[in-house]
Amino acid sequence: MYIYGDRFSGNCYKLVLISALLDIEYQWVDVDILKDETRTDTFRAMNPNTKIPVVRLDNGEYLWESNAILNYLAAGSCYLPEDRLALARVQQWQFFEQYSHEPYIAVARYIQRYLGMPEERLADYAATRAPGYKALGIMEQQLACSPFLAGESMTAADISLYAYTHVAHEGGFDLEPYSGIREWLQRIEDQPGYVAIGHP
Amino acid sequence: MYIYGDRFSGNCYKLVLISALLDIEYQWVDVDILKDETRTDTFRAMNPNTKIPVVRLDNGEYLWESNAILNYLAAGSCYLPEDRLALARVQQWQFFEQYSHEPYIAVARYIQRYLGMPEERLADYAATRAPGYKALGIMEQQLACSPFLAGESMTAADISLYAYTHVAHEGGFDLEPYSGIREWLQRIEDQPGYVAIGHP
Repeated sequence: MYIYGDRFSGNCYKLVLISALLDIEYQWVDVDILKDETRTDTFRAMNPNTKIPVVRLDNGEYLWESNAILNYLAAGSCYLPEDRLALARVQQWQFFEQYSHEPYIAVARYIQRYLGMPEERLADYAATRAPGYKALGIMEQQLACSPFLAGESMTAADISLYAYTHVAHEGGFDLEPYSGIREWLQRIEDQPGYVAIGHP
Repeated sequence: MYIYGDRFSGNCYKLVLISALLDIEYQWVDVDILKDETRTDTFRAMNPNTKIPVVRLDNGEYLWESNAILNYLAAGSCYLPEDRLALARVQQWQFFEQYSHEPYIAVARYIQRYLGMPEERLADYAATRAPGYKALGIMEQQLACSPFLAGESMTAADISLYAYTHVAHEGGFDLEPYSGIREWLQRIEDQPGYVAIGHP
């Protein structure tokens, strides 16, 4: 399997982390989004939506969308429950991540870390504050009830939301008041096989 | 099962359509988003993210996020494949829907149909054009290769994307140039048990 991605993208890191936890082998191919490498004809043939990560599977097919790939890799493992409701709960948090968390927490980090806070993006950056903190508040509320987002044990939902939450400060979000989130981040980092973002 | 929703919301319609196709019984509870009925304490106890749809399952638990609920209801049916890669492909299109389609196609319709194009939302409306048409182009490209988004047969991915695509004109998107999409809409409407948005 080949993973096409950026080592510091949270969406790509989801795949690196599950692969480390499950000892899945892959080849890594660097894609530089700031050099528009997702907009070439070659890349569009892999993912017409011009986003990373993309994986090339052993059968030659390409698969895109980070959470779909994550669940593909986690299938059959302890990180993806088979029970119908437990699995729906994992997906509930993953769709929450893509609609109500990533567009604020990750986009703020992109503007701050990747783009260096250009004047023309400051209004967009400011607009991420309220919905970003709303998303963190919803996670905090759940983590007051269960040690992991979808229940008693760590699942793919935790990986999906860990990816950008643990680097939320790089987008100017302060996690200090969120003790439930901070303890949850530590529980994930304590998993055997855990690797940090940027891992080669 | 109780579904809390709005009869003309595409996200809620996903659940109405799969229930009709699979003959699943439910009680419907109307929620008026324009009257802030998702922001009451009662509603927040069902979904802290203050969005519809929400379902109350027979065991008393609440589940939210339209695509997670859709997949829960479709589990074990012909609309949700069991093969690992086929299932990942369904999820690929569903995450595409929530991140790259709904925020443009559905939001434009919301501004036009629900809000009546208020002056202060016209810039947001205009900003939906390019990414909305990009999403439609990606669907058109796939539908030139396969009759349904995830392959040869209709899946939950088609329901997820049908929901707002078939009413895209209510947000000012012109589907005339997209013959692949228009033929795909018809294939879905030809399914035994199909019901239209707004039902009953």
